Amino acid sequence: MNDLQIANSVTPLPIQQIAAKIGISSDQLDFYGKYKAKLPLDLIDEQKLKQSKLILVTAITPTPAGEGKTTVTIGLNDGLNRIGKASLAVIREPSLGPVFGIKGGAAGGGWSQVIPMEDINLHFTGDFHAIEKANNLLSALIDNNIQSKSRNLGIDPRTVLWKRAMDMNDRALRATIVGLGGKNGGMPRETGFNITAASEVMAILCMSKNLEDLKARFAKIYIGDRFDGMPVFASELNAHGAMATLMKEAIKPNLVQTLGQNPAIIHGGPFANIAQGTNSILATKMGLSLGDYVVTEAGFGSDLGAEKFFNIKSRAAGLSPRAVVIVATIRALKYHGGKPLKELTSEDLSALGKGLPNLQRHVDSIRSFGVPVVVAVNVFSSDTDAEKKLLLNYCQTQGIPAALSEGWAKGGEGCMNLADLVVKAADDCKQDFKPTYDLEDEVTEKIRKVAQTIYGADGVEYSTVAKSQLKKIEKLGMSKLPICMAKTQKSLSDNEKLIGRPMGFTITIREFEIAAGAGFLIPIAGEILRMPGLPEVPSAETVDIDENGVISGLF
Amino acid sequence: MNDLQIANSVTPLPIQQIAAKIGISSDQLDFYGKYKAKLPLDLIDEQKLKQSKLILVTAITPTPAGEGKTTVTIGLNDGLNRIGKASLAVIREPSLGPVFGIKGGAAGGGWSQVIPMEDINLHFTGDFHAIEKANNLLSALIDNNIQSKSRNLGIDPRTVLWKRAMDMNDRALRATIVGLGGKNGGMPRETGFNITAASEVMAILCMSKNLEDLKARFAKIYIGDRFDGMPVFASELNAHGAMATLMKEAIKPNLVQTLGQNPAIIHGGPFANIAQGTNSILATKMGLSLGDYVVTEAGFGSDLGAEKFFNIKSRAAGLSPRAVVIVATIRALKYHGGKPLKELTSEDLSALGKGLPNLQRHVDSIRSFGVPVVVAVNVFSSDTDAEKKLLLNYCQTQGIPAALSEGWAKGGEGCMNLADLVVKAADDCKQDFKPTYDLEDEVTEKIRKVAQTIYGADGVEYSTVAKSQLKKIEKLGMSKLPICMAKTQKSLSDNEKLIGRPMGFTITIREFEIAAGAGFLIPIAGEILRMPGLPEVPSAETVDIDENGVISGLF
Repeated sequence: MNDLQIANSVTPLPIQQIAAKIGISSDQLDFYGKYKAKLPLDLIDEQKLKQSKLILVTAITPTPAGEGKTTVTIGLNDGLNRIGKASLAVIREPSLGPVFGIKGGAAGGGWSQVIPMEDINLHFTGDFHAIEKANNLLSALIDNNIQSKSRNLGIDPRTVLWKRAMDMNDRALRATIVGLGGKNGGMPRETGFNITAASEVMAILCMSKNLEDLKARFAKIYIGDRFDGMPVFASELNAHGAMATLMKEAIKPNLVQTLGQNPAIIHGGPFANIAQGTNSILATKMGLSLGDYVVTEAGFGSDLGAEKFFNIKSRAAGLSPRAVVIVATIRALKYHGGKPLKELTSEDLSALGKGLPNLQRHVDSIRSFGVPVVVAVNVFSSDTDAEKKLLLNYCQTQGIPAALSEGWAKGGEGCMNLADLVVKAADDCKQDFKPTYDLEDEVTEKIRKVAQTIYGADGVEYSTVAKSQLKKIEKLGMSKLPICMAKTQKSLSDNEKLIGRPMGFTITIREFEIAAGAGFLIPIAGEILRMPGLPEVPSAETVDIDENGVISGLF
Repeated sequence: MNDLQIANSVTPLPIQQIAAKIGISSDQLDFYGKYKAKLPLDLIDEQKLKQSKLILVTAITPTPAGEGKTTVTIGLNDGLNRIGKASLAVIREPSLGPVFGIKGGAAGGGWSQVIPMEDINLHFTGDFHAIEKANNLLSALIDNNIQSKSRNLGIDPRTVLWKRAMDMNDRALRATIVGLGGKNGGMPRETGFNITAASEVMAILCMSKNLEDLKARFAKIYIGDRFDGMPVFASELNAHGAMATLMKEAIKPNLVQTLGQNPAIIHGGPFANIAQGTNSILATKMGLSLGDYVVTEAGFGSDLGAEKFFNIKSRAAGLSPRAVVIVATIRALKYHGGKPLKELTSEDLSALGKGLPNLQRHVDSIRSFGVPVVVAVNVFSSDTDAEKKLLLNYCQTQGIPAALSEGWAKGGEGCMNLADLVVKAADDCKQDFKPTYDLEDEVTEKIRKVAQTIYGADGVEYSTVAKSQLKKIEKLGMSKLPICMAKTQKSLSDNEKLIGRPMGFTITIREFEIAAGAGFLIPIAGEILRMPGLPEVPSAETVDIDENGVISGLF
């Protein structure tokens, strides 16, 4: 059975029954169909959430197929519930782009999925659409002001940084010219579209504490400059009120269920290569208010998702993970040991051994935050006993708690050993995490610390453009913001060809972006696409629906 | 009180209570929050709907403010319920574009509104978003195919007619170049965006009989031509299955309530100047299945909305309105009598008298379909007794049933006289409507009949471009499709300056569009914008939300 067939083989419980398990009455829910609901923000309990334990799931450096973090997150959550713990999974919303691009759905896999899988992967409760509209309303107001006769702010069209957004893999929208067609068609200018998951509005939603904070962050968005060189912010276009109005429902976290019939919260989905890569602060806090454990995840390897989870999200929200699960697969470790992508299903103990330093580097990175680590070996049917034994032995000799995670094949039952290890680690952890850098550090110092402590780099270089942007950041008074590194997920370095555990490399910062509303600076290392393209054979071509509404090809 | 304050002064009933009034159980509903729900398509009862009576609300030639068709539609529906008739209002979904542009919300006015007004005017149940995504997925697949090495269909980028869509007033997107940035960014080509309400996907949704028909129509969308001159359809890109999948919820009509706590169905919202301008066939049929009367509307004046309602929608769906309500305002009639827009609130019996031929022309047009007419005088506080008397006297002498419609000020209570007249007209009408043209007529013959019978034109002229497109339509075998005229709403002619009842004019067809999926040809008379712009002071600037989620500025 494929993921969609497995998901459809289980009859979901009405969502009010899932809500009842965590003490939420039907009246408090805003239903979206029978199996999805929005949760009111007043369910967040600042006292209760401090007593609960936050578990972060991250990964080694992934192969293009991904290492199954969401599958482990959901499996572990169901495993925790099986061993009697009140646990919620709190995860990101999938983007439509990949659904119709390469990989199909993104709501876990096998017997560790959240359902209703089709709805979650398609429009869900409309959050991405609301984000896109808020983003694009600001764009329309910018171009309308440039066109305006009576109320023109003098925005220099050549400096506008704010792009439109679309939740679609559509490479032709990366670089565009808008405003053609003569005087009534606006002022011609170069611009482009980001995929919605890579937009600052998405990042802002996920950083916001409440509706008021959301609006205040929208007001602070830095759009571009005037002809006189002064910066222009969204507040000057009176955009923030309408943008926040468009987000009045999107700000509320969404309740669904796992295949194990446990509650799961899904909310927000910023990309991890360009943004913070994890669900909203509001969703995490709500999960901690409603359960004793929350299992959450952050995108790509620990060098991207986990680093930002600690230094940006946890710091801003006053959260501290009590344990970190690093997902490793034998396939990916063999890849990091030099085995070609197409040969990863055959046994190769030598390649596996050579790939272990990648795992070790991720373990060391997480330990730099002072938080306990557990390794979850996400099992595939091609893994051999000898390979599993080698990997588990390695972890044992290095003093790293490790367990097999069989959530794909067995759901929560396959993750009970992992759950035991995680509970022990989390219950033993008494101290808060230690960030990699201080907010008071110079921007270059923050970047240096992340590059050395997390990536294992020797140092950092800056392009001429980046150097002048550093001066601009200083002038704007924004150098005390945290940094949100934009870097390839395929390597610990900024060169995607350097697999395994690269040594003796430097990171080059090509340019900076300023996400003044989200509240971070984005140093960009290398070429980061904020609008993906479709592949030669898009999965959209196989997605279908029959006359009875039964969907196929979505997995 | 403004519209938003009036809407919020009434506590809505939970939507399941509204559903119960028309025999629908909670189990059959898909809730979207507490006051909106989607209705399953199997509520359509082809036997029952034939027994019910369809009332169409249309208008005289409108002023820029609109004549209040939606207000009359909702007020009349509540009036019908007050006189003991089981009636449903079935109307269109508002577009976000105007909400943030000039006019604010579009869900009726005063005490004749549908609620929850904010939700209906913002994202509602996500139908517009789904339409936009289906539209833009096809765009991404087109550009991806043009970029493709192995599966290239040979689409000539200069001939691609399919545009992207965005539900936003954003003039800068009217004319664009996409695909810039070098080899990886796609093939550069000129294109643009339509506002979602003007997209063919919207038109298709509103013409579809069921999910299967929707998918079949998507497959038939005509995209552009190959380099060899042959036409390319969406089916060749395998786009229709995924497009229909994106629409699996959007195809279901939405249930809300009026301020009079009567059921209202809202579904689909195609523009009336470029598309058919009325809600979906599915929603109309569902309304007729659930009540004995359905009050529905079609956009702009009868020359646009009503003509298409008969010749396109009713013909395709096998429906026949039993009465048509023509909404007239004293303000607009004075305008058509030559009084300037800014002076319409002062009494002017002479101007009113001179404007009456506009009303008469619309009455004659509707009577050409063989359907009884009732005039609803939508009352404004500036109307004087003498003006009302003059107008009602005119109708009486001409044998046109007419009543004041005071739905804005009094809700259903203010529309009971109108309801009585409408019931009498509808109950007396025994015959089906007579279309203006036969589908077998030549395209030019169809256009001539509409221009002469409905607009009162002397004849029709064609540009050179339009003449060559007529040959192409012939070659594509599409000349038996009905015509969906694109024309200014501001005049019965194609020249917006000709107010009143123009005489001795001809219509010029500048070009044709082919909506092969929707199933009609679009002869374009004059300049029709499919992407509006924002005004100097967009209403977005006044829309706001406070920390408790209370919205202001949306009216």
